[in-house]
Amino acid sequence: VERPRRQGMAKNTYMRWRLPLVCLLWEVAMIVLFGVFVRFGAEADAHWEEEKREMNLTSDIENDFYFRYPSFQDVHVMIFVGFGFLMTFLKRYGFGAVGFNFLLAAFGIQWALLMQGWFHSFKDGKIFIGVENLINADFCVGSVCIAFGAILGKTSPIQLLVMTLFQVTLFSVNEYILLNLLHVKDAGGSMTIHTFGAYFGLTVTRVLYRPNLEQSKDKQGSVYHSDLFAMIGTLYLWMYWPSFNSAISDHGDAQHRSAINTYCSLAACVLTTMAFSSMLQKKGKLDMVHIQNATLAGGVAVGTSAEMMLTPYGSLIVGSISGIVSTVGYVYFTPFLESRLHIQDTCGIHNLHAMPGLIGGIVGAITAAAATEDVYGKEG
Amino acid sequence: VERPRRQGMAKNTYMRWRLPLVCLLWEVAMIVLFGVFVRFGAEADAHWEEEKREMNLTSDIENDFYFRYPSFQDVHVMIFVGFGFLMTFLKRYGFGAVGFNFLLAAFGIQWALLMQGWFHSFKDGKIFIGVENLINADFCVGSVCIAFGAILGKTSPIQLLVMTLFQVTLFSVNEYILLNLLHVKDAGGSMTIHTFGAYFGLTVTRVLYRPNLEQSKDKQGSVYHSDLFAMIGTLYLWMYWPSFNSAISDHGDAQHRSAINTYCSLAACVLTTMAFSSMLQKKGKLDMVHIQNATLAGGVAVGTSAEMMLTPYGSLIVGSISGIVSTVGYVYFTPFLESRLHIQDTCGIHNLHAMPGLIGGIVGAITAAAATEDVYGKEG
Amino acid sequence: VERPRRQGMAKNTYMRWRLPLVCLLWEVAMIVLFGVFVRFGAEADAHWEEEKREMNLTSDIENDFYFRYPSFQDVHVMIFVGFGFLMTFLKRYGFGAVGFNFLLAAFGIQWALLMQGWFHSFKDGKIFIGVENLINADFCVGSVCIAFGAILGKTSPIQLLVMTLFQVTLFSVNEYILLNLLHVKDAGGSMTIHTFGAYFGLTVTRVLYRPNLEQSKDKQGSVYHSDLFAMIGTLYLWMYWPSFNSAISDHGDAQHRSAINTYCSLAACVLTTMAFSSMLQKKGKLDMVHIQNATLAGGVAVGTSAEMMLTPYGSLIVGSISGIVSTVGYVYFTPFLESRLHIQDTCGIHNLHAMPGLIGGIVGAITAAAATEDVYGKEG
Repeated sequence: VERPRRQGMAKNTYMRWRLPLVCLLWEVAMIVLFGVFVRFGAEADAHWEEEKREMNLTSDIENDFYFRYPSFQDVHVMIFVGFGFLMTFLKRYGFGAVGFNFLLAAFGIQWALLMQGWFHSFKDGKIFIGVENLINADFCVGSVCIAFGAILGKTSPIQLLVMTLFQVTLFSVNEYILLNLLHVKDAGGSMTIHTFGAYFGLTVTRVLYRPNLEQSKDKQGSVYHSDLFAMIGTLYLWMYWPSFNSAISDHGDAQHRSAINTYCSLAACVLTTMAFSSMLQKKGKLDMVHIQNATLAGGVAVGTSAEMMLTPYGSLIVGSISGIVSTVGYVYFTPFLESRLHIQDTCGIHNLHAMPGLIGGIVGAITAAAATEDVYGKEG
Repeated sequence: VERPRRQGMAKNTYMRWRLPLVCLLWEVAMIVLFGVFVRFGAEADAHWEEEKREMNLTSDIENDFYFRYPSFQDVHVMIFVGFGFLMTFLKRYGFGAVGFNFLLAAFGIQWALLMQGWFHSFKDGKIFIGVENLINADFCVGSVCIAFGAILGKTSPIQLLVMTLFQVTLFSVNEYILLNLLHVKDAGGSMTIHTFGAYFGLTVTRVLYRPNLEQSKDKQGSVYHSDLFAMIGTLYLWMYWPSFNSAISDHGDAQHRSAINTYCSLAACVLTTMAFSSMLQKKGKLDMVHIQNATLAGGVAVGTSAEMMLTPYGSLIVGSISGIVSTVGYVYFTPFLESRLHIQDTCGIHNLHAMPGLIGGIVGAITAAAATEDVYGKEG
Repeated sequence: VERPRRQGMAKNTYMRWRLPLVCLLWEVAMIVLFGVFVRFGAEADAHWEEEKREMNLTSDIENDFYFRYPSFQDVHVMIFVGFGFLMTFLKRYGFGAVGFNFLLAAFGIQWALLMQGWFHSFKDGKIFIGVENLINADFCVGSVCIAFGAILGKTSPIQLLVMTLFQVTLFSVNEYILLNLLHVKDAGGSMTIHTFGAYFGLTVTRVLYRPNLEQSKDKQGSVYHSDLFAMIGTLYLWMYWPSFNSAISDHGDAQHRSAINTYCSLAACVLTTMAFSSMLQKKGKLDMVHIQNATLAGGVAVGTSAEMMLTPYGSLIVGSISGIVSTVGYVYFTPFLESRLHIQDTCGIHNLHAMPGLIGGIVGAITAAAATEDVYGKEG
């Protein structure tokens, strides 16, 4: 019985040996590098009892695990279900989207634990990891999932693995320069994750440009149910974005504030997206592409400033603007990118990640500049 | 290429200007009102360090964020994925269900933050918000999602936004009267959320009664995959209901108890629902409508009393009864409502929310009346 | 209108009275037994304030609820959405998978609370329950869901309920013998849950062997969308497995460590699964069956040892090996089981649960044997 379900992965006829070899060799490399470098951080190590006594902690609940694990799981869902299903809207590429996203993310988090570990958690020749490292690895892979959105349907799994290797490396270098050398604050990663990921992906898709792709566009359309699957991705990204932006903020009020700001920004973004989607379409219909994507721009745009004293109404303003910018981008900018610059942006990541990420950087700079001792208290 | 995916939203031909205008003007109003009124509560504000010292808290983990954020996220999933996908069972209305639910909830939470804030968190001319306000706003919007279930497939997004505006307002007034003036305890919202939401929705659908709707019933049928999508909604509502009922309970044993009671009630409800579904159908088949809906009645019915000392076996009894009542309602009461009272209840919210909510109120009253100092300790 | 959606449940023509009777009588039995035996544990009881004072706890956050509830909800999702949707891959059996899984799990958790309670939480003639009991009940039901995978599509709901009754009973006895009498440590349940559940299910499917099942194989195939639904199950199991393995570990570093080890093992497992899936297929295509199942073997195999000082690279090794073993099992062992031993293993649970569970037991024994005072500190 010829089962149609493998069709999404059908083109990769010659990868019989290449994919297994790459996967196995790279996994062996991971094992060796983890063996040499990676150890449990103090809060995950069996010596934690001693550590606790030294730090005068009275309770196990002070372990960072309890501050961050629920947020980590939300971020985890965003990477694997959120990004994976968001890209299932193509009628012929549902498995490719979910399956390849699964593969690249599973490799990416291992390589990211190493790369980010060398830059940020390296001590006495070892990388010490805890739940915050897992979150950061997921973040880093998030930027790869974003880039994947631009080239969706055009690449083999091996190409994706190679891209992941390069992008995670570059991500970590870029992050190190921004956070450690330039001392930029970017807890929600508007710039480090979203803008970086988007421009990386757009560069790759420009390189892979194929002029005759247009002919295969009927394969690229969506069907009713593939669009509903994509809504699963959209909603999980939308709902858990407050966890994304607050996951690595400081304990206490900063995490609390990040979640509230993101919640407000996203709510406002939905209304302006629907408004402009209806306004810019013939007959005022709503376009599912906008609902699936532009509604999320508010989370991207508030990433940098979410943990700052942006205030709830500030978040509504940021969210409103980013929903408008993103929707307008889908209607006017994506066709322009394709026809003039030969950049085929399958999922429209320029509208969802690049532009809102830039807005996020600007808003973060303004909010930080507007910070006064009065607003933050003398300890802030 | 004419894409079929917008079909669910196809009727709204003349909303090109009306929907954008309503969305944009209302969002501007939200921004202005948030700017005037809404500020971060003490636990989300950058002055939290000082607050912490004043209240003699030794650790950041005492921030309400860590008590309630995981439950908040579960409730958030129930509102957007739970209610959204529960309503995708109609073959032609999957996007309308998920998309319009998304729109009305995103607007509703903003308006609810204001309305509930004025009633409950207003101090010195400002509304101070924290994670508990976000949960309450989600709760309030939950009652709108319930009402949406009655009129599913019969309204435009603008009508839904108008309904949301009115219902959130009325919800907050009703909640204020019940909780603050009559001092009713209703942590899980059996009455304030479910019964209120259901009767509001039934009133609206009575007003919108169209006698020829029956002819379009073939459009209203379900198909195999739309029913599976609906099961996603059902299961997320079912699984996270313990979080729903415990989300705003007092810290400590009350939250713990609410979760256990709800878990027990829901488990029992599944068995009695399946029993009566099979019993009342020809040939003993199970009806997906009952499995999708009546299995949830146990969560509704235990809402008021979950944080009380209802005990696990009490929860099993409440869950068992509500499953039976709800299933019988689907078989006998919904057709009666439509043929005699001209109330077209698309999702059967009378069976899932109105009646179990009333049961919940009665159970709550009995449990509260049965409370003795022995059961609760002298501090309870 | 003949709706196709009940087709998956269509064979059970004569269950009109049997299913209702079993459900109702058993639920009444549960109510009676809960009434006699089950009470709230100290941390869920209204006397918690007094308990807190006695134990010198200064904060409500010390309640076990806050240590374990987020993990409990993740486990809950794994049981109902994870296992439920993983089994929807059959084209004609989506509802049977999700619906019957729902029914058996809802009954199973009640019976498991009693059985496990008598063995582990029994004091002065009562069973005292808290969030840890809910997790253990979900674990126990997990082993029934695993067994269900072997007989998927071959049983009526009544047979499943009877199987649940027996399996939960036997599970609890087996667990008591292993954990309490033989003092085995098995926090993630590699042996107690996975290996036990798998061999139980394989025994049942051997008993139910029907030689002419092969003819109905076209009914058993998957279609594109049913495979995407199954991916929802796969991903939720994969993402939340760190919560599964850490849910009942000791507070503090043990929970933290379990999550990290499981995260690493699962990531490695994806790569080796993809490698072998591609290598063993004609033309190097990836097989969705492997991606849906074998990618999870890493979570099973690391269950016993996750809370030990397995180290991250040790987890990568365990995950890599289990992915290979599981994929090879799907290609060579499942056909062998069916043709030679007349064991029809619909979901291939021997490859996903039995063998990785055995690996888990062996790894756990090695890790425990390798434990030294140096690694764990003198208090470990």
